[in-house]
Amino acid sequence: MARATIGDSEFDRDTAITPRPGEPGVFDTTLSAGWTIIRAVNGGYLLAVAARALAATLPHPDPVAVSAHYLTPTEPGPAVLRAEPVRTGRTLSTGTVRLLQPGADGTEIERLRVTATFGDLAALPDDVRTTATPPLLPPRDRCPGSRDAPGVDRIVPGSTEILDRLDLRLDPATAGWALGRPGGHGEMRGWLGLADGRDPDPLALLLAVDALPPTAFEMGLRGWVPTIELTVHVRARPAPGPLRVAITTRNLAGGFLEEDAEVWDSADRLVAQSRQLAQVLLG
Amino acid sequence: MARATIGDSEFDRDTAITPRPGEPGVFDTTLSAGWTIIRAVNGGYLLAVAARALAATLPHPDPVAVSAHYLTPTEPGPAVLRAEPVRTGRTLSTGTVRLLQPGADGTEIERLRVTATFGDLAALPDDVRTTATPPLLPPRDRCPGSRDAPGVDRIVPGSTEILDRLDLRLDPATAGWALGRPGGHGEMRGWLGLADGRDPDPLALLLAVDALPPTAFEMGLRGWVPTIELTVHVRARPAPGPLRVAITTRNLAGGFLEEDAEVWDSADRLVAQSRQLAQVLLG
Repeated sequence: MARATIGDSEFDRDTAITPRPGEPGVFDTTLSAGWTIIRAVNGGYLLAVAARALAATLPHPDPVAVSAHYLTPTEPGPAVLRAEPVRTGRTLSTGTVRLLQPGADGTEIERLRVTATFGDLAALPDDVRTTATPPLLPPRDRCPGSRDAPGVDRIVPGSTEILDRLDLRLDPATAGWALGRPGGHGEMRGWLGLADGRDPDPLALLLAVDALPPTAFEMGLRGWVPTIELTVHVRARPAPGPLRVAITTRNLAGGFLEEDAEVWDSADRLVAQSRQLAQVLLG
Repeated sequence: MARATIGDSEFDRDTAITPRPGEPGVFDTTLSAGWTIIRAVNGGYLLAVAARALAATLPHPDPVAVSAHYLTPTEPGPAVLRAEPVRTGRTLSTGTVRLLQPGADGTEIERLRVTATFGDLAALPDDVRTTATPPLLPPRDRCPGSRDAPGVDRIVPGSTEILDRLDLRLDPATAGWALGRPGGHGEMRGWLGLADGRDPDPLALLLAVDALPPTAFEMGLRGWVPTIELTVHVRARPAPGPLRVAITTRNLAGGFLEEDAEVWDSADRLVAQSRQLAQVLLG
């Protein structure tokens, strides 16, 4: 199979949106069942779809800071995006987008409310002054693929469709949960790419921050961990090649946990940071 | 001076909002000059004002996840808040609020766009399973107050009004910048309270996450560091007494930095976590 490219890949096709004629800021899309996990469509995939609507609405090309509140569980199938610009500046612009799906009676139900600030990542100065260091991972060929282990569906029954679209190789040190021996720590890390070989771009980083199994699994919890809020900061355009993603949870309390993600590119740059607040619904 | 109480304090008076008769979701307020720093009204103070409008609009009392995009610099004086519910659930509800100020020609200019999910922190289960530990700080009386050092206005000229409203005592190990000897690390931590003795509540935590001087100062940078986006997760109702706040920056790149804050209460609970993306405008 030929390697897919940015613009011509499964991810691009499944996040495509169509402007509705005569209705500025309104876009139709069909959410693919290919990106579902457990009971819902993956939150990072939804964020990428929403960001496409904003990229088509704002003058700047790249997501820089994207905040999303997840309102109701999304289902595969038709959805509409309603985007509006909020403020347009010289180097940054901000907009909001709502993702809605038709309910049983035909009225639109809002699934996701996103506010995002866009910019031009290629125009940023080159200065880097960081103390952050990439996650230590075994070489990619020593990390088992997500389809090599019993995995997610043993922990929580449901869809694992998304795993067929990702090339995810977890560090064995944080993959004990997949063998029924969770490490007990709120950490997971691995190599991540798209299964069809498409290289990462800023839009794919929105997927990457929410693509690993939840830290809750490695903490030994079984259940669904729906995202309440997810904010992503895209810090640089990623270089081609596999990403390294590390997620951590420090505080599980009151039925909520935070999950922090950082994404590093093949050139050792920290290209995205995210934090989400998720609810722990024990099974 | 008698110790101020929640509901009857400078912070409560300066964040008060007045519903506009006949216009549901619309509130008037006067932003106090008492919470300005350098060139702008403090972002955490603005977030508290915005949260009051949502608390008056949504059925749940407490901010749980609050995302704000800062659009244009706010000035002290009149402002209007336009809030609307987005989704109301059993345990959580979500709304948005816009904070606007009249421009020179009388049209409203949007300063801040906030989407927030509210809940009832008092109703959360008691489970805590955390690996996070409070910041190590010298005893409060061994940390100099923010008015004891030459401080902020030597680094960036402008207002330091907010310091009169805070009881902020920085760990000397992270306050070298105030003496012209920045430590070079993206860390700052200290004890925080309100100057009039009012105890913290969830609303005051929105102020607390943005109340310390920017980490950029301790990294040896001089200039204004305006917030682009700030998300706060309130994880528990704070116990009475002083807070401990730690802020860290790991990645300064492309003219942006992230600033992570964590806030601990006197009962050693992690009561708030936040991350902001800020722009570094070197002076």
